[in-house]
Formats: sequence, C-alpha cells, structure tokens
Amino acid sequence: MNLERLQDQFFRLRSNRLFELFVVSVIIFSALVIGAKTYDIPPGLLMVISWLDVAITVFFLVEITIRFIGEPDKRNFFRNPWNVFDTLIVVISLVPIQDSEMALVGRLIRIFRVLRMVSMVPELRLLLNSLLKALPQLGYVILLMFIIFYIYAAVGASFFSEINPVLWGDISVAMLTLFRVMTFEDWTDVMYETMAIYPLSWIFYLTFIFLTTFAFLNMVIGIVVNVMEQEHAADEKERATEEGEVTLEQLHNEIKELKDLLKEKDKDTA
Amino acid sequence: MNLERLQDQFFRLRSNRLFELFVVSVIIFSALVIGAKTYDIPPGLLMVISWLDVAITVFFLVEITIRFIGEPDKRNFFRNPWNVFDTLIVVISLVPIQDSEMALVGRLIRIFRVLRMVSMVPELRLLLNSLLKALPQLGYVILLMFIIFYIYAAVGASFFSEINPVLWGDISVAMLTLFRVMTFEDWTDVMYETMAIYPLSWIFYLTFIFLTTFAFLNMVIGIVVNVMEQEHAADEKERATEEGEVTLEQLHNEIKELKDLLKEKDKDTA
Amino acid sequence: MNLERLQDQFFRLRSNRLFELFVVSVIIFSALVIGAKTYDIPPGLLMVISWLDVAITVFFLVEITIRFIGEPDKRNFFRNPWNVFDTLIVVISLVPIQDSEMALVGRLIRIFRVLRMVSMVPELRLLLNSLLKALPQLGYVILLMFIIFYIYAAVGASFFSEINPVLWGDISVAMLTLFRVMTFEDWTDVMYETMAIYPLSWIFYLTFIFLTTFAFLNMVIGIVVNVMEQEHAADEKERATEEGEVTLEQLHNEIKELKDLLKEKDKDTA
Amino acid sequence: MNLERLQDQFFRLRSNRLFELFVVSVIIFSALVIGAKTYDIPPGLLMVISWLDVAITVFFLVEITIRFIGEPDKRNFFRNPWNVFDTLIVVISLVPIQDSEMALVGRLIRIFRVLRMVSMVPELRLLLNSLLKALPQLGYVILLMFIIFYIYAAVGASFFSEINPVLWGDISVAMLTLFRVMTFEDWTDVMYETMAIYPLSWIFYLTFIFLTTFAFLNMVIGIVVNVMEQEHAADEKERATEEGEVTLEQLHNEIKELKDLLKEKDKDTA
Repeated sequence: MNLERLQDQFFRLRSNRLFELFVVSVIIFSALVIGAKTYDIPPGLLMVISWLDVAITVFFLVEITIRFIGEPDKRNFFRNPWNVFDTLIVVISLVPIQDSEMALVGRLIRIFRVLRMVSMVPELRLLLNSLLKALPQLGYVILLMFIIFYIYAAVGASFFSEINPVLWGDISVAMLTLFRVMTFEDWTDVMYETMAIYPLSWIFYLTFIFLTTFAFLNMVIGIVVNVMEQEHAADEKERATEEGEVTLEQLHNEIKELKDLLKEKDKDTA
Repeated sequence: MNLERLQDQFFRLRSNRLFELFVVSVIIFSALVIGAKTYDIPPGLLMVISWLDVAITVFFLVEITIRFIGEPDKRNFFRNPWNVFDTLIVVISLVPIQDSEMALVGRLIRIFRVLRMVSMVPELRLLLNSLLKALPQLGYVILLMFIIFYIYAAVGASFFSEINPVLWGDISVAMLTLFRVMTFEDWTDVMYETMAIYPLSWIFYLTFIFLTTFAFLNMVIGIVVNVMEQEHAADEKERATEEGEVTLEQLHNEIKELKDLLKEKDKDTA
Repeated sequence: MNLERLQDQFFRLRSNRLFELFVVSVIIFSALVIGAKTYDIPPGLLMVISWLDVAITVFFLVEITIRFIGEPDKRNFFRNPWNVFDTLIVVISLVPIQDSEMALVGRLIRIFRVLRMVSMVPELRLLLNSLLKALPQLGYVILLMFIIFYIYAAVGASFFSEINPVLWGDISVAMLTLFRVMTFEDWTDVMYETMAIYPLSWIFYLTFIFLTTFAFLNMVIGIVVNVMEQEHAADEKERATEEGEVTLEQLHNEIKELKDLLKEKDKDTA
Repeated sequence: MNLERLQDQFFRLRSNRLFELFVVSVIIFSALVIGAKTYDIPPGLLMVISWLDVAITVFFLVEITIRFIGEPDKRNFFRNPWNVFDTLIVVISLVPIQDSEMALVGRLIRIFRVLRMVSMVPELRLLLNSLLKALPQLGYVILLMFIIFYIYAAVGASFFSEINPVLWGDISVAMLTLFRVMTFEDWTDVMYETMAIYPLSWIFYLTFIFLTTFAFLNMVIGIVVNVMEQEHAADEKERATEEGEVTLEQLHNEIKELKDLLKEKDKDTA
C-alpha cells in the first residue's frame, strides 16, 4: 500500500515540468563543472568542484531512483533505451576509482553525463532519432564506400609502403591516409611523394577522389530525396484529411448518382 | 502648424527616390573613404579624408533627423529596428574620441556605417530578413551540435592537454581546435600529434568528423526542405487565386445543382 | 548576281554538318598545338608548329569570311554575340606582334581560340547560356556577400595591418586574405597570428566563416529552388499540352452544357 | 545426356542461396588475406598465406567453371559484363609470374578480386549501375569543365612555367596543379608565388575557382533534379496504377455518357 502511494507520488513528480527543468539545470551545471576542471584552478576551488561532483552524482542517483520507482510497470523501464543509457551512466560513475588507468574512464563517464541532456529534452531526442533513422537506408552506399577504401588502401599499402611507411605501412594506416586524402588535407604532399617513384600515381589519387566524391554526393542526394518524399507524403496526407477536400473519387460517385437518377426517371416515364 | 508642414515636406523628401539614391551614393562614398584610409596615403590626402569623414558624419546626422521629423507617428520610428540601428550608428560616431582605446571603437563604428546600405536597399533588407528567419528553425540542430562540440572538447581537454596545451589547454581552446578539425584545416597534424601518445585517438577525430558532417548536412537539408515547401505553398496559393482556376469544390457544387435541377423537374412532372 | 550565288553556296556550306565537324576538328587540333608548345620540343618541331599556327589562323580567317558572306542579312551577323566573339578572336590573332609585351597577349588570344569550341557546339552554347542566366537572379546575394567581405576587410586592414602587412596591408589585400579564410586554406595560421595580439580575434574569423558559409548556402539553395521550379513548370506545361489532358476547366464547361441541356428540355416540356 | 544433367545440377547450385553466401565469404576472406599481407608477418604465417592464396585462386576457378557450365545458353554468359569481369580476374590471376615487373600486376589482380563482391551482391550491382547511369547525362558539363581546365592550364603553362617548372612546367602538370587549386589544397602558396612576378595573377586563380565551383554546383544540382524527377515520375505512376485512382479523363467520359443519356431521352420523348 505504502509503496504504491510512493510510486504514485514519484510518477507525478517525474512528469512534473518543474522537476524536469531542475534536472536539466543540474545537467548543464555538471557540464560547466566539467568545463571548469579543464582550466588551471587554485586547489581550494578544485576541492569545491570535487564536492560538487559528488553532489551531482548523488543527485543523479536519487533522480534515477525516483524515475524507477515512479514507473508503474517496472519491465517497461528498461525497454526504453534512454533509461538504460541514463542508468548505466549513473551506476558506472558510482564505482570508486583509484588507479590511474581507470581514472580516465571515470572522467569519460562524467563527461558523458552531458549526453543526458539529449535524453531529457524531447526535441533533441526526436532529432537524434531522425538522424539515426536515416543511417540504415544508406547501408549499401557505406558498404560500397568501404570497399572502395579497402581496395585503394590495399593498392597503396602494396606499392607505397616502402616510400613512406608512416602513411602507407599497413592497410589500416593506408585507410587513414586515404581518409585524409578524401578531406583534401595536404593530399598533394602525399601524392608528390609517391609520384617521385611512380610518376603515374596521380591516377591513383584522382580516381580515388572522383569515386569517393561521387559516392558521397550520391549519399547526400539519397538523404535529401528521402527526407523530401517523407515530408511530401506527410503533407499530402495532412492536407487531404484536414481540409476534408473533395476528391476525384467523390465526383465520380456523384456523377454516378446523377446517372442513376436519370435512368430511374426514364423508367418512371416509361 | 509650421512644424506640421515641415514634417509633411520631410516625409515627401524621405520617400523621394532621388533622395534615397543620393543617400546610397553617400554610403558607397563613405565605404570608399574607409577603404582609402587603409592604404599608405600622403598627409595632405589624409587631411582631406578626415574632413570628408566629418562631412559624411554631419550628412548622416541631417539625414536621420529628416527621417525622424518626417515620421508622422514618432513612436513608430523606433519600433523599426533598422531606424534604431541607423540612429545608434550615427549617434555613436558623433562622440568625440581622444584616447587610443576608444579610437578603435570609433573606427569600427565608421566601418559599420557601410551596413546602412542594407537598411537603405529594400531588396537587401528582405534578403537579410529571410536569412534571419531561417535561423530559429535550426535552433535544436545548433544546440545538438554545440553539445557534440562540448563533449568532444571536454574529452580532448582532459586527455590531450598535456600533449599540446596550445591546442587542448582548456575547454574553450579545445572547442576552437575542434572547429579547425571540422574545417579540415591541418587536422591530420593535430591527430598525428595525439596518436603518438594515444594510438587509438584517430577514433576521436573520425567520429567527431562523421558526427559534425552528418549534423551539418542535416541542417542544410532542413533549410532546403523548408525553403522549398514555403515556395511551393506560395506558388500553389498564387496559382489558385490568380488564374481564378476551377477547383474540385466548384465542380462538386455544380454537380449538386444539376442533381437539384433534375429532382425539381421530377417533382414538376410528378 | 554572282555574289548572291556565292552567298547561297556559302550559306549551304556553313550549315553543312560535315563542315561544322571539320571546323571543330581544327579547333581541337589548335588546342593540341597550344598544349604541345608548353613542352620542351626540338627546334625542328617548333618550326613545324609555328607553321601550323599560321595555317590555323588562315583557316579561321577563311571560315569566318565564309560565315559572313553566307549570312543573308549582314546586320544579323554581328547581333549574334558568338559571331562577334569569333571575329574578334580571329582578327586580333592576325595582328603581327614583335615586342615581348604584346607577345603575351598574342599567346593568350591563341589560347582563347579553344573557346570557339563553345561557340561551335550547340549543346555547350546552351549550357553556358543557362549558367549565365542563373547569375543575375543571384545579384543581391552576391552584393550582400561583397558588403560582408568589404566590412570584414576594412576591420581587418584597420586592426591587423601592423601584425602582418602582407596579409592585411590594405583593404584589397585583406579581401584576398578573407577569400583564403573562406576556402579554409591555412586559415588557422592567419588566426593564430592575430590572436597573439588580440586574443579575442577568433570572434572575427568565426563570425566571418559563419556569415559567408550561410550566405553561400543560401545562394546554392536559391539556384536549386529556381532550377527545380523552372523544370517543374516546364514539365507541367509539357504534360498538359502533349497528352491533350482533360483539365478541370473543361469539365466545368461540360457540366455547364449539361445544365443548359436540362434547362432547354425543361422549356420544351413546359 | 550426362553433360546436360551436369549443367542442370550446376545451374541449381549457382542459384543456391547458400552457395552464393559461401562465395561471398571466400571473397571477404580473400580481402582479409590481402589486408594481412600488408602487415609485417613472420615467415611461417607468410607461407600459410601464400597457400591460402593458391587455394582461393583454385576455388574461384572452380566457381567460375560451375557458373559457365551451369549457364543454359553459353553465349549469354559472356554478354553479362559482370561475368566477363569475373572471368578476366580469375584467368589473369592464373598466369604464373616470376619477374618483379609483372609481380606488381599480379598483386593488383589479387586486390581487384575484392571487386567480385560487387558482382555477387545484387544490391551493390544495382547501386553501381545507378551511379554509372548518372554519368552520361553530365557529359557536356564534364566537357565544359575540361575546356575550362585546358584553357587555364595553357595560360598557366605559358606564363608561369619559368616561375615554378614543377607546378607549371607543361600543360599536363599545370592541369594537375589546377586540380589542386580546385580542391583548395595550399592554393594560396601557388598563388603568392606567381603574384611575386605577376601581381595581377590573383585574377587567374579567383576566376578559375569561381568558374569551376559554379560548374561543379551546376553538375550536382543537375544530378539532384534528375534523380528527383525520376523518383517523382516513378511515384506518380505507382500511385496511379496501384490505387486504381479516378482520373479526370474518366470523369470527362462519364459526363459525356450523361449527356448522351439526356439526348437519347430527348429523342424518346420527342
């Protein structure tokens, strides 16, 4: 009985607009604390910041507990990926860390708490969902691009590895170098170096640039067309249902009725 | 009485096409004077230019006064943000400046006078308004991008600050470095430096580039879709109203009339 | 009489597909000769090439004369801008050049002969026309961008000219530097240099990059929307006229006829 | 008889989903082997890899033979360009190679075997076909761009070849340099060098950048518009045929029938 009332209260609390605003404020405050830590700060302030850090961790623990208890159906709680993400971030940041190796991970977790912003603000959640939804449609284009990268990296690592092992030493390094070429970052330096040995190697770079640019363009256009079509379809639907507009189908039926009327009259007069 | 007649005359003056053209010419001339000052010029010419500067300032003062007096409803004058902008620019450039600190601000104000061009030419004003109108729609994408920047800058400042304090010293410097990475400006130099200590840090850069490129693309596509839809909607409306085109609704009503006609006749014959 | 027959023959000649093909071949050949001259070639071959050059010049002179005589209405000939361009190129390349100053101009004229390719192939002429047609629509965006460039260049030349006179010496040099910043070409080097004196000067660069990128995007989207609308309108028209499709207007008239028929019958029966 | 049964069995085998999956796995495995070879590996493993290489070659030979025997109409086999490509790759990799010159070619062939992935996965084949289909439509834009490149390269090679023979030595090197300028790769270094001799040469670079950017944009927009129109047309068709929607044509015919009905009745009553 008692627990049920608690759940009910917590459910109301977590749906409270003010409570949400307060949580978002704490997240922003924790982001500022993280930012402040990157500056050279006097030890006194550092002390304060580390206490604030603990306070934020405790607050997040309390908040996630309220959320969990406030959930009417406990199984639903972990079906929501955002809840799983929130819980993981909070639980991991609880683990006490001493050795330096793990301290880095601890710092990362504290930074990832800023991402809770996305899980709290519905508009950002929607935006991220729509971004993620666009990805699978591009699956095969990304696969094709990976094949292009792999083949060129294999050719590069086979032919140029002795010219510059830092850039073309093995296939993974060569792929990184090719990504650099794709972003046009000092790509001519890379090219001039290999052209000194293989004078025709400009063909390698130019075909690579054309292929990847072309594939990338195709990807972008693919997204544009998809988004536009979805928008267009949604628009059409909305317009048709909202305005209760007359369709050609309706006119067709009305003309049919007219014809039936005329035929009936014919029979009557007959 | 006298003031009213003055206002009427000034109102006609400021709406005069020739007067507007003359003001635009003075603005262009002031821009040329500003440009000329950046060259090494003999002291004699410098003297002339500083006199021209005063003349332009006085002219702008007179012009804004004409505009203000010519306004029938004085309260409306400052409701127009362009008028506020014009007045501010003119008033600040009147303040006499001696010390060198403020001299820089004075120079800036003189340069901003060129922006009065935008407030004078209606087409430019329209263009700027449409640009500004596109911004708020992108609010959440910009917020998401800022969160991405902040998180990556926090990670960068935490891990790489000892490798290169100039690039990763604190979170604000790290954000500038990340903006540089986003523009592909010597980003591999930044990456190779950190890869010497953390060999896996290429993941940091590549995921950042993918995320920001993807978010940027989304932003661009968002604008395109929005603009297209607005154009399309405006087109549809225009077409429908302009040509007085027959709509399905009309046909529907006409068929109804026909039916009524038939029914009436039915009754008559009956 | 004789002249008229000549004109008739020349008119047929210049409209001949084979003749056009031959002219295009000569243009391509002249392009190859220009390309060949940029290589280190033995004096013997150089001799041959200079003779070929003379031959091409003579051929073009003959060709343009045929074109002119073949034109039925002489005044129309110079109304076509392509003809004016062709004639200018041919006439200027006839002027004998000795001194070295003018020799450069002579070389340029010979290179511009390759542009006659565009004036000969109708598809290229169409393409160029459509490119040029897109320009005026963008007039005000280009003007706005120029104002942005001018203001930032004035600010840059005023504040940074003593830091690096090569980059910010006067307003024209500053505009070139800003164009470099816009293409992201080592823009951070330019920025870091001024940030050493004015630590806040990153605001200058970042706002400039945002403004120009935004304006550029707007320009591109403007072209896309324009092109799409034109295509769409052309499509609609084509579809409507080609298929002889039934319009709503027609249906409207047909229903009217029906109504009239019914009314007439009414009168008849009455 | 016996051969026919063999063909039938092989036909079923090559259409088998499991067999296809196995071939794709072998292709991926061969890609991994190629990648592994670029790393420094102990001689023992190198031995294993070279044996695996032979095994893969034999497997591909067997697979292509099965495909060929399984084909009912042998002439059709070589009409499919993908089959020709597969056969070439397999046959060339069979040629025993000793001397070092040809060893490079042999290595290339082994790498190109990864491309068989595209010929095996139908979705990738479709994607590549659609990419290739977009190319010819852009033919004239590419020709125009080539003309722009050629003219600028001729000008560059004529005027700047003595300033920097590495960049502007002859027309082909100049075209490579211009491609570099188009990708904004250290283009200001190239420009500043020539501006030291010809102070106005910035006009050369800026006009080139504007022309190529403009032409490139036009190309991209061309693809977008084309793709959109095809999608739109396909959509319209699908909608019209799928839903069996009422067209204006149909309504037109129905109204005609109505009219005929009325006229007939007129005659009847008459």
